[in-house]
Amino acid sequence: MTDTETLLIALAARVQLLEDQLDLMRIISAYGPAVDSGESAAVAGMWTEDGVYDVDTGSLRGHVEIEAMVLSKPHQSYIQAGSGHLIGPPHIEIDGDTAVATCHSQLVLHEPETGTYRVARITANRWEFARVDGQWKVTVRTSRLLDGRAEAREILAAGVKN
Amino acid sequence: MTDTETLLIALAARVQLLEDQLDLMRIISAYGPAVDSGESAAVAGMWTEDGVYDVDTGSLRGHVEIEAMVLSKPHQSYIQAGSGHLIGPPHIEIDGDTAVATCHSQLVLHEPETGTYRVARITANRWEFARVDGQWKVTVRTSRLLDGRAEAREILAAGVKN
Amino acid sequence: MTDTETLLIALAARVQLLEDQLDLMRIISAYGPAVDSGESAAVAGMWTEDGVYDVDTGSLRGHVEIEAMVLSKPHQSYIQAGSGHLIGPPHIEIDGDTAVATCHSQLVLHEPETGTYRVARITANRWEFARVDGQWKVTVRTSRLLDGRAEAREILAAGVKN
Repeated sequence: MTDTETLLIALAARVQLLEDQLDLMRIISAYGPAVDSGESAAVAGMWTEDGVYDVDTGSLRGHVEIEAMVLSKPHQSYIQAGSGHLIGPPHIEIDGDTAVATCHSQLVLHEPETGTYRVARITANRWEFARVDGQWKVTVRTSRLLDGRAEAREILAAGVKN
Repeated sequence: MTDTETLLIALAARVQLLEDQLDLMRIISAYGPAVDSGESAAVAGMWTEDGVYDVDTGSLRGHVEIEAMVLSKPHQSYIQAGSGHLIGPPHIEIDGDTAVATCHSQLVLHEPETGTYRVARITANRWEFARVDGQWKVTVRTSRLLDGRAEAREILAAGVKN
Repeated sequence: MTDTETLLIALAARVQLLEDQLDLMRIISAYGPAVDSGESAAVAGMWTEDGVYDVDTGSLRGHVEIEAMVLSKPHQSYIQAGSGHLIGPPHIEIDGDTAVATCHSQLVLHEPETGTYRVARITANRWEFARVDGQWKVTVRTSRLLDGRAEAREILAAGVKN
């Protein structure tokens, strides 16, 4: 191989890593818009077929259960009244074909009676990804309320410790 | 063309797409700082000369009208009291020389009488961009309150549906 | 040098600039998770050894003082009750081996007595970075409350003016 070819291959690897980071950011940035508009298939499609969404109240596994959450009465009542699932900029670590993203999220709800908005909760999130057939998919998302419980702090700490 | 040249051209196209994504993120991330500091020219300059900012209360067209919004009494009273136009990570789709970014925004206001802060609104945003003379500019930004109105959900859904 | 080599070198410089932008975003995105989980060493390690965190109430200099802030009673009481230091997407300007990022931040606190959450403050932030031994480090972070004080607006304006 010539020197130029060697340099080109090294540069292509760096570009791939940048693409991976932006792909992961792009996927995560779709969650809020999808879940607040009730696009249940778009939400579920972020996960692998048997992907897990592990929340404080229990664990959802697979597209059917995740879609059911979006279509559930409580979630539909949020979005009919006006809801914003806002997400902080994810902190991403990529290791070949797996990746972890750590971020805060915030749920803001509109209260139709008063016309006001309130922060209903803030949450610590860990998104675990795998590259499946060339596409990043969520394998496990773990979310814990930032209401003082140690688990939530542990999620955040795990994402930023060396 | 040699194989190396062909690979180099393909890699340059991938780099261009990454640059486009980061350029768009960079432009959107300027909105909050510009609008909360009253930098009306910086706000208006995000748009094309005849760009449109279509909000619930009406439509602003062109730099003069967008600047006038920033310089208006209601907006100035927000920023004099303390305001934060926070934006969620934008979900970006690029198609050659046009692009669409979808994201939430949140307006937090300081209330001087009590020294407290409140979420005044959450909003669904669709930013349409065109590349003009090599620079991305907003052609239309459409923003709708997430207060239960269907239009807001439609904006979010359009950004994440396949 | 051949034309191919010249193109390759130019492309490598563009890739480096993209890497710098994503590295800076990655560092900033670690702040919230680190500070809300009490990972004081991870927080302090974002700064250079003698880096400054200049806040409304005074200035912290160096890792020891920054760690002490994280370990302080007021901060620990926030995180034990549940806190979210959320950050808006940073607006980044890179100039060789220095960079400036401008963004909003928002502190949301859980109130254990009522089980509710409130926005405790919104803040304007200017992060100044230097590349030290190949790694971006914060040299000065300046944060001012968005409560109407002019300094906060000046921070935001400085980040987006040409």
